[in-house]
Amino acid sequence: MSERIFNFSAGPAILPVEVLEEARESLLNFQGTGIGIMEHSHRGKAFSGVLAQTIADCRKVAQIPDDYQVLFMQGGASSQFFTIPMNLLSSDDTADYLVTGSWSKKAVAQVKRFGTAHKAASSEDRNFCYIPTETNYSEAPKYVHMTSNNTIFGTQFATEPSVPHGVPLICDASSDIFSRPLDIRKYGMVYAGAQKNLGPSGVTLVIVRNDLVEQANTEIPEMLQYRTFAENDSCYNTPPTFGIFIMGLVFQWILKNGGLEEMGRSNEKKASILYDYLKTSELFSATADSDSQSMMNVTFVTGNELTDKKFIEAATAAGFDGLKGHRSVGGMRASIYNAFPEEGVVELVRFMKDFESKA
Amino acid sequence: MSERIFNFSAGPAILPVEVLEEARESLLNFQGTGIGIMEHSHRGKAFSGVLAQTIADCRKVAQIPDDYQVLFMQGGASSQFFTIPMNLLSSDDTADYLVTGSWSKKAVAQVKRFGTAHKAASSEDRNFCYIPTETNYSEAPKYVHMTSNNTIFGTQFATEPSVPHGVPLICDASSDIFSRPLDIRKYGMVYAGAQKNLGPSGVTLVIVRNDLVEQANTEIPEMLQYRTFAENDSCYNTPPTFGIFIMGLVFQWILKNGGLEEMGRSNEKKASILYDYLKTSELFSATADSDSQSMMNVTFVTGNELTDKKFIEAATAAGFDGLKGHRSVGGMRASIYNAFPEEGVVELVRFMKDFESKA
Repeated sequence: MSERIFNFSAGPAILPVEVLEEARESLLNFQGTGIGIMEHSHRGKAFSGVLAQTIADCRKVAQIPDDYQVLFMQGGASSQFFTIPMNLLSSDDTADYLVTGSWSKKAVAQVKRFGTAHKAASSEDRNFCYIPTETNYSEAPKYVHMTSNNTIFGTQFATEPSVPHGVPLICDASSDIFSRPLDIRKYGMVYAGAQKNLGPSGVTLVIVRNDLVEQANTEIPEMLQYRTFAENDSCYNTPPTFGIFIMGLVFQWILKNGGLEEMGRSNEKKASILYDYLKTSELFSATADSDSQSMMNVTFVTGNELTDKKFIEAATAAGFDGLKGHRSVGGMRASIYNAFPEEGVVELVRFMKDFESKA
Repeated sequence: MSERIFNFSAGPAILPVEVLEEARESLLNFQGTGIGIMEHSHRGKAFSGVLAQTIADCRKVAQIPDDYQVLFMQGGASSQFFTIPMNLLSSDDTADYLVTGSWSKKAVAQVKRFGTAHKAASSEDRNFCYIPTETNYSEAPKYVHMTSNNTIFGTQFATEPSVPHGVPLICDASSDIFSRPLDIRKYGMVYAGAQKNLGPSGVTLVIVRNDLVEQANTEIPEMLQYRTFAENDSCYNTPPTFGIFIMGLVFQWILKNGGLEEMGRSNEKKASILYDYLKTSELFSATADSDSQSMMNVTFVTGNELTDKKFIEAATAAGFDGLKGHRSVGGMRASIYNAFPEEGVVELVRFMKDFESKA
């Protein structure tokens, strides 16, 4: 750990050291097989074991019942944006979207080729600095889509929004999946690109209820149908084996470290160290409304672009990497996913206080 | 190397030891950045450097001119099967397919939603044991699609087939890309899932001429348009950064080891050691016609299923892994991709001779 620096990158992002160490030991010779983990056939005994264990551990982490599938797909959340309406909408159908940031907007933009998107809520009026509490659902939405955490704007749903009875809630949880307890029964589907809390980029975790898999369009290419992945244990074609392997190690790391309850406690503590300081600081302030603040991405500014720039430069030089905010918000962003150590947050606040005292 | 065994897996497959060793050193701390390679932002300096170098090295390996794009996509060759007609065909268009195995057939099956597939040649009459030499092209195909190497049936095009003047040739080269010199000018597009000769599964290399990128359908989801990848250096969304990194190391390994000329010489030598023995053996025989034999996947049988089974068991016990043939051909398959050492082929032939002498 000594040579590693504090990596606040929004994604791809920091992974647990123990996971990286185990991956390192598996690259040339996985579990004494004489073959590296990346070199094992996806249909061979070694990888089949990894796949089964990863699915089992995923189910254990989030207590996922049998009527939900655990699938590994490719193409990131961005591919889910079109895959969801392609599978679930007919041209006369409407799907409702809660628009809380750039990723939600991108998801909405993909609906038009397959059906109609209705914006049931939006916080765009104030540059997405809050999570809307009022919703205006359409008459009969096929599903409601939400983005649980908004990486760019530093906001997060504190809890699930209420949706019309019987309508499946679909959640892009790319940037906060498994960061706190998850009541999967409240969702029809939860999906996440791996590269924040779960593993390397290039694998997408999809947890989806059977009825949604079954009702999906059969007229689209097989590689875009959820049922193809469900019916073939994600091995219809060669899956991203290494990414799945790393995800499995991350699931084991979560289980070893107290599960989602403990992840939630730890993340809340880390975030509150930063937010508490931001509340008292006269130099720095949080950009998100206090009732909507993300535990994963803490966004803040000084109110002066030049000072922001100076701060980022000084922080980078001091070993705090990846703090530059997204260009649409400016300022700073500290991404403190599951694997990010509390120590790093404490050190950052110390550095910020020091910077403030000299400003 | 001492603990590693001979891995004849058809894919995911053996990678160069030097590549795995460098990957191992990069997992916790990539080039002294204090951040592991998987944890670096895809928009940061470290990974941007990896990406640019990987593209440059790919161009160098195959002398790819500027009017071709080098793209990194996801979803494997199986996703290209539908993405190609989706991008390039209108409903009135026909595309011609050279059908030389299971993968070609899967590619053909994906065309119907977008246009018409015409089988311009097929070797299915003899269970794909040869590469057809006669072609029957349609009047005005939008493109001709071929599979250069047929993993399952152990056949390979010795050279490019002739195609109607001006019609782009599109090649699924998943299992023999960069195994020998490649004259990219003869192709409109060459694509390959990484997991045989290039890296881990989960990244697809697409080399495509600009005119095909430009003429492609704009009415399909952005994540399925080649132009989205071309216009954004494969970073419209988060690419599979680790897979690209490994692919880059493999390109450097190819360049260090004499480039494609030397890959070709080495692969020809390895394959001929096996084929020469198969010609003289009274127990084993090659399944592919002699003018169509693959340098990547050597398929052979004893003619007796029970003996095949005994041989595979004995070989596995002796440290020769992954020799079981695909169920549609039966028997044995020795996949000897670029990274497979000549020593392993010599040892296998020695083992086969010994087995034969005791049979």
